Amino acid sequence: MRVAIAQVNPTVGDLRGNRRLVEEAAAKAVEAGADMVALPELVLTGYPPMDLLERDGFVRDQLRELEALAAASRRVAIVLGAALPTEERRPRTLVNAAVLLAGGRQIAARAKSLLPSYDVFDEKRYFRRAERRELVSFGKTHLGLTVCEDGWVDELGYNIDPTGELAADGAELVFNLAASPWHVDKAPARRGMIAALAARHSVPLVFVNQVGGNDELVFDGASFACDAGGRILAHLPSFESGFAVVDLDGEGQPPENIADPSHVAQLEAGLVLGIRDYFRKQGLPPGAVVGLSGGIDSAVTAHLAVRALGADRVLGVAMPGPYSSDHSIHDALEVGRLLGIEVREAPIDPVYEAYRELFASLFGERDNYGLAQQNIQARIRGALLMAVSNAEGRLVLATGNKSELSVGYCTLYGDMVGGLAVLGDVYKRDVYAIARFANAAEPRIPESSIDKPPSAELAPDQLDSDDLPPYDVLDAILEQAVEGGLTAASIRPPTGVSAKVVRDVIARVDRNEYKRRQAPLVLRTSTKAFGSGRRLPIVHRYPAD
Amino acid sequence: MRVAIAQVNPTVGDLRGNRRLVEEAAAKAVEAGADMVALPELVLTGYPPMDLLERDGFVRDQLRELEALAAASRRVAIVLGAALPTEERRPRTLVNAAVLLAGGRQIAARAKSLLPSYDVFDEKRYFRRAERRELVSFGKTHLGLTVCEDGWVDELGYNIDPTGELAADGAELVFNLAASPWHVDKAPARRGMIAALAARHSVPLVFVNQVGGNDELVFDGASFACDAGGRILAHLPSFESGFAVVDLDGEGQPPENIADPSHVAQLEAGLVLGIRDYFRKQGLPPGAVVGLSGGIDSAVTAHLAVRALGADRVLGVAMPGPYSSDHSIHDALEVGRLLGIEVREAPIDPVYEAYRELFASLFGERDNYGLAQQNIQARIRGALLMAVSNAEGRLVLATGNKSELSVGYCTLYGDMVGGLAVLGDVYKRDVYAIARFANAAEPRIPESSIDKPPSAELAPDQLDSDDLPPYDVLDAILEQAVEGGLTAASIRPPTGVSAKVVRDVIARVDRNEYKRRQAPLVLRTSTKAFGSGRRLPIVHRYPAD
Repeated sequence: MRVAIAQVNPTVGDLRGNRRLVEEAAAKAVEAGADMVALPELVLTGYPPMDLLERDGFVRDQLRELEALAAASRRVAIVLGAALPTEERRPRTLVNAAVLLAGGRQIAARAKSLLPSYDVFDEKRYFRRAERRELVSFGKTHLGLTVCEDGWVDELGYNIDPTGELAADGAELVFNLAASPWHVDKAPARRGMIAALAARHSVPLVFVNQVGGNDELVFDGASFACDAGGRILAHLPSFESGFAVVDLDGEGQPPENIADPSHVAQLEAGLVLGIRDYFRKQGLPPGAVVGLSGGIDSAVTAHLAVRALGADRVLGVAMPGPYSSDHSIHDALEVGRLLGIEVREAPIDPVYEAYRELFASLFGERDNYGLAQQNIQARIRGALLMAVSNAEGRLVLATGNKSELSVGYCTLYGDMVGGLAVLGDVYKRDVYAIARFANAAEPRIPESSIDKPPSAELAPDQLDSDDLPPYDVLDAILEQAVEGGLTAASIRPPTGVSAKVVRDVIARVDRNEYKRRQAPLVLRTSTKAFGSGRRLPIVHRYPAD
Repeated sequence: MRVAIAQVNPTVGDLRGNRRLVEEAAAKAVEAGADMVALPELVLTGYPPMDLLERDGFVRDQLRELEALAAASRRVAIVLGAALPTEERRPRTLVNAAVLLAGGRQIAARAKSLLPSYDVFDEKRYFRRAERRELVSFGKTHLGLTVCEDGWVDELGYNIDPTGELAADGAELVFNLAASPWHVDKAPARRGMIAALAARHSVPLVFVNQVGGNDELVFDGASFACDAGGRILAHLPSFESGFAVVDLDGEGQPPENIADPSHVAQLEAGLVLGIRDYFRKQGLPPGAVVGLSGGIDSAVTAHLAVRALGADRVLGVAMPGPYSSDHSIHDALEVGRLLGIEVREAPIDPVYEAYRELFASLFGERDNYGLAQQNIQARIRGALLMAVSNAEGRLVLATGNKSELSVGYCTLYGDMVGGLAVLGDVYKRDVYAIARFANAAEPRIPESSIDKPPSAELAPDQLDSDDLPPYDVLDAILEQAVEGGLTAASIRPPTGVSAKVVRDVIARVDRNEYKRRQAPLVLRTSTKAFGSGRRLPIVHRYPAD
């Protein structure tokens, strides 16, 4: 059996455009002499379709595209994911199905058995699960059709194993159609897990994953096929569309050697794809605007934006204020020079002074460098970036990192403005790593932006370290709290750090849920990002003080 | 059987405080000579606990409070909701249970069978459903314990009916412990539906619902008990804590006459409770600040804030700008006079002029009254309100209504700033209704704020009607789209309105998802609010243009 793997990049809701992606893949498969072509989960709707599934006409329109696709199956069989209505009408229910089209018609459909409903997943909101696993006959071959989570039995401890049941029933080839969102280091672990599943049940397996960014989620692709021994026979790259043909009967085909990208290379590539697709799929031709402070976060954000969009579609704005150091404006301009982007300057002092006079009548000048006076500087900068956005149609990229966003060391409606928080799921230590990685080939981030002590520069001689533990300490605590779900009592303090520091950090994390709720979309890079995968009440009292 | 119904107001995560609410209810029940006291669903965690359920230690700490409560059951049996772990460890699973405590120990627990996972509900994310329904023996009486959604069989078309099964098995009394969030006109419909269920299965039923605001959700209470004929024997008020004792053996007890509050009275009371509890549970003693434009939305928001917090905890700020009409500042001050709140004035012109000069260097003055220049006025006002918040610890209340928020007729980081969007789920027509209702007893909202044509006053002689259809037309379209889930093609245009107007409105609704994603918490008053119950992608292409 010759199977084509089509790792495509669908746009959510673009039913017609996504159908064309399938048709193009089918045409390539015909050309390559394949018997079948496999496409990802819910490829016609794009993943995740969210509440569009409940919108009047959406599923019906998708079914029309599915019917139109049947014609393309006259010359090659197509296995693809689609949302199918069940017989039930009240309540109306759907299944998340793998569909086999062949000979110009729909041959079979099999519903997903395991519906993820944790972190960013809401599938039980939309879908009913399969009660049984059933083989599909394709000519003389028995196929097993599974969908994404159906293959995550080992990792997540489900008590049914669709792949195992299908293999036991005589499946000669199992497909896993996936929309498996990326986080750093997921691809090799996922490949290892699913190949081990194939080996355990002695059945060849084709895993085909969506690629591309859809809102906060980046899908990495990294599709593959393995033989009944779990040996990888074909493998598609991460972070780009791809197509491969694999001969699953060909005995003794040599296994592939796969070099997965490094941690930081994945981070860079994943974020670049997330930015690029956000702009492309939304249709934002004028590009991005980034406030350049001279610090590392904004420099790395601009660097990633240039990689994603090209230097001509990224504008930097330097907005020095009363407490900006001399090197700040110099470093901001240097970012522009290194990246080859336009940088405009707009000193905020006159607006700041006008606000200060108003403050006197509003609440008196109680504290010269207090919170209101600090935050207004960030808010002037945010308003200026939004004014550029309004005037030129550019999208503002927020520059804050995950360490800051965790403890609320950021100003709502100030440095938090924007459509996309590029580094919102990247701890400070990894922002440094991306900067050094970017500079390895050619200078992209000014060395002084990397070397200088981080500062918000909203008060005289201010440093982040006045208000926060050192970032290595902070990040070590945060990772246990955010990714690990631990409370202060259970967190292991980094060496030399007191339990009180841990408690203070965690109290700040809890207290700032309200800021994050109004943050821009955060591109997800970890197992737990701020966004739809983390659902906490704003007002709550746990743990008790 | 004498049963006490304790309609309490738990705070999410306040495990100890919520336990005390149960103890107090038990003490009252003892005093009243009741055999049992019933409390709402998940009363120890408060509803909805969201991802706190996944936080290390949270369920364990709740179980400790549950054990402590057992002692209180020596003198009266307690039926209450709690999250209980199942035997399974991998994956760890919970059930949403009704627990019977009596004689100093836990007698029985029964898991919820129907787990809502739509709109604002995510219960399949956290809980496993009961596979079977089983009676509980209490002395010689057979009880049926159900939880909230278990009673929504008729409305939602579930194919199992826990109440019916329990009644068929011999239940002599069924409890429904609920955390059923309010929307306008829900209480009578819910009562009718559940009483009809009791009548159909000829079993007396006690429905006990949580009351109070938790983040975006307001719970209305309106608990009741009915006999086996569905006649209401006892009924607790909406929007306040309550306690009642009902004798369920007492034959021929007279049914209660219930006067449900009017549509607009519910709206006012629900929003007031939502505001009050947000402040009380968060612990925000300095109160609220509201920008007063002289228009009806800000006047009604201030009125509701005063009802919720008291006039001494509400500050108004009038921020006239270059395009404010003379009557605006007059009307803003008049709101202050009528409501008895402090109003400060802060004209924005000097800040606005300083921005305009910066704009020239940033992007030239392409358009004197363009988007950037309009929005910056709203953003100056937003920044000033946030400065008051920073300086005085007050929470900003956003004043925009649902009509504006739907079509994006509002400025992100401008009039959208705040912790709570009080009117974000109230269409403009209902804002007028609240104003007239408020003025019925005594003048609260200036008549000129009600009478004048709505305007954002961000450009000369600007009126909302320049940019939007009349609000009655707009609201009629929006209701079909937002609450009804209809696309432009299916919406019935109001009389005299073209299909193009409908399409334009719907295109604006779709285009502005990104603004709403960064909006403050919207207090939910309808069946479909902007917030956690509406989950749409920001970048998508459905329907195709």
